[in-house]
Amino acid sequence: MQVNGENYRSIWPDPVDPGVVHIIDQTRLPHEFTTRELRGYKDGIDAIKTMAVRGAPLIGGTAAWSMYLAALAAEKSPVPLDDIQRAAEQLNAARPTAVNLKWATDRMLARLNTTRDPAEFAHVARTEAQAICDEDVAISESIGRNGLEIIRKLSAKKNGAPVNILTHCNAGWLATIDWGTATAPIYKAWREGIPIHVWVDETRPLNQGSRITAWELHRENIPHTLIVDNAGGHLMQSGQVDVCITGTDRTTRTGDVANKIGTYLKALAARDNNIPFYVALPSTTIDWDSRNGLDDIPIEERSEQEVTHIDGLLGSQIVNVQLAESSTPVSNYAFDITPSSLVTGLITERGLCEASESGLAELFPENA
Amino acid sequence: MQVNGENYRSIWPDPVDPGVVHIIDQTRLPHEFTTRELRGYKDGIDAIKTMAVRGAPLIGGTAAWSMYLAALAAEKSPVPLDDIQRAAEQLNAARPTAVNLKWATDRMLARLNTTRDPAEFAHVARTEAQAICDEDVAISESIGRNGLEIIRKLSAKKNGAPVNILTHCNAGWLATIDWGTATAPIYKAWREGIPIHVWVDETRPLNQGSRITAWELHRENIPHTLIVDNAGGHLMQSGQVDVCITGTDRTTRTGDVANKIGTYLKALAARDNNIPFYVALPSTTIDWDSRNGLDDIPIEERSEQEVTHIDGLLGSQIVNVQLAESSTPVSNYAFDITPSSLVTGLITERGLCEASESGLAELFPENA
Repeated sequence: MQVNGENYRSIWPDPVDPGVVHIIDQTRLPHEFTTRELRGYKDGIDAIKTMAVRGAPLIGGTAAWSMYLAALAAEKSPVPLDDIQRAAEQLNAARPTAVNLKWATDRMLARLNTTRDPAEFAHVARTEAQAICDEDVAISESIGRNGLEIIRKLSAKKNGAPVNILTHCNAGWLATIDWGTATAPIYKAWREGIPIHVWVDETRPLNQGSRITAWELHRENIPHTLIVDNAGGHLMQSGQVDVCITGTDRTTRTGDVANKIGTYLKALAARDNNIPFYVALPSTTIDWDSRNGLDDIPIEERSEQEVTHIDGLLGSQIVNVQLAESSTPVSNYAFDITPSSLVTGLITERGLCEASESGLAELFPENA
Repeated sequence: MQVNGENYRSIWPDPVDPGVVHIIDQTRLPHEFTTRELRGYKDGIDAIKTMAVRGAPLIGGTAAWSMYLAALAAEKSPVPLDDIQRAAEQLNAARPTAVNLKWATDRMLARLNTTRDPAEFAHVARTEAQAICDEDVAISESIGRNGLEIIRKLSAKKNGAPVNILTHCNAGWLATIDWGTATAPIYKAWREGIPIHVWVDETRPLNQGSRITAWELHRENIPHTLIVDNAGGHLMQSGQVDVCITGTDRTTRTGDVANKIGTYLKALAARDNNIPFYVALPSTTIDWDSRNGLDDIPIEERSEQEVTHIDGLLGSQIVNVQLAESSTPVSNYAFDITPSSLVTGLITERGLCEASESGLAELFPENA
């Protein structure tokens, strides 16, 4: 997507220097657009740990490119596969709950294990990392094309007025390699010239909406308005929202959706006001073993500090300030479950479907 | 209520110096507990304008005490009533939307206009300001006693486990003169020895929950936990909330409730999980002319700065930091409407009633 008139992905190899991979340092957004160079797999671990990169698909992509850097460094090692294996283990430990991490390092290792000539390791790893990223972009683009149909139909009823889309958190291109998931239909619609306007939930406590989604949309010149998480209900009551589209971290085979905390509240308000509520997802995030989100999906609790403190700009410095008394007890659940009954439909790379076991089974018969 | 083991109201006259009224500077909370002296009605205007005092009942109380200070200063004036009238006009303009302001200055003026001897003005004004505050405390205490019954009944089913109460914003003693509205039943229950625990919504954008409600509860040693506004739905889904109690800024004669933005989302989640949702209010906030909250109650929009910037503690300094890009467009509605159908009951100074025209008419037949 666009940043200052140039096209970017969220991670890319240097076109000249084979020892360098570039990322965008997301911890500095929205105050600074800074890219960082990864010059070894340990830089990749650091980027994942410090959340310079975040979002499941991008974490996977970063792990893949880190494995390439490990393969490159192992070229002259007497035991290159041992070195690469060790890098994979360290990468997997960078954020233990991120399933995409191990998925990416496993795939890279499997590919390298079938490569006979150690002189080929770096080349093979580079090709595989690029393939992992290209496949993710293709999935996001398909989600975008499929979700575009929803926005096109809504637009047809609006007589040229913008379609008002509410989104929560950041399921944008910076959480993936490009296009995003919830944002992919938005970017596709905008490029087709469909008038749209996006309500961006701030998304406490980590403010991914105000920090990242608003930043992304601004770079693409898409009309948007930042709101606090409390505001969506009023906007829906007063006819200012035409559709909600969010991402998801995990979806059950029955269509229950785990997503950033607060998604459920927006889905309730959408139902109360007869507003369609869609969830965009790559099929890799469907948990085919789970039938009941509330029973089966554990909800991660994160640090109190995320609620009691916040990063902000003071003059030209980014500082961390304290918002609550240090003695205040805090609970910080990161996700909630939106039952399938509140979800109008799922937007996948294979098409739209009902948020139900039969709906998903029709699109993905191999998992049914 | 208690602060550091001492009992406080939110405003009080100095017991020795007749020229001084004390307030708590709420802009410094939760980081600093600072009291401020009002030494003339202009100090009162400043306190209201800068939100050192906020909350409709406390704004009314501050206006009343400011009128006393104006009457005191006018003692030696050749035209004391003219001076006092001028003070009232300036006070009324301090926050034009605060109806309690004009209500309080009107009542003070009416009392002074029936006083023949100008030498009596200060004494009469002091007595009237004290009466306004004492009456407000009595109303809050009655709300507390009536709401206590709800908590007592819930506690009887919990086998000694705490009753989990969720509240939004600050309808606490610092918004009134003492006890608060939504918090009054909480304080009453705690003093009766009923085990309780309060979930405190942060309440973006102005964080009245994390800054003021949590601070109040901590001073009274009431168990509480701060959560982001997004979290309440998950807590209700997972059986961690027994009852919601909020305040209100305006209630229609049919029981629709205007309250801090986000209240509606919590009421939806409460209904979806069969959790009772109560609203505590002094009957002075009932708008007997309005029958439909969504049609009749205008929703105030406030400054973008409240969303894009925030006060926090950096070292020992309170600083204001920027959270979003300065170019980000913001919408900042301050209230939303919770339809009466989502409200289990209203807690008033006369007792509990259904959130409906007939429920309110039974308690307040003189307005029916």
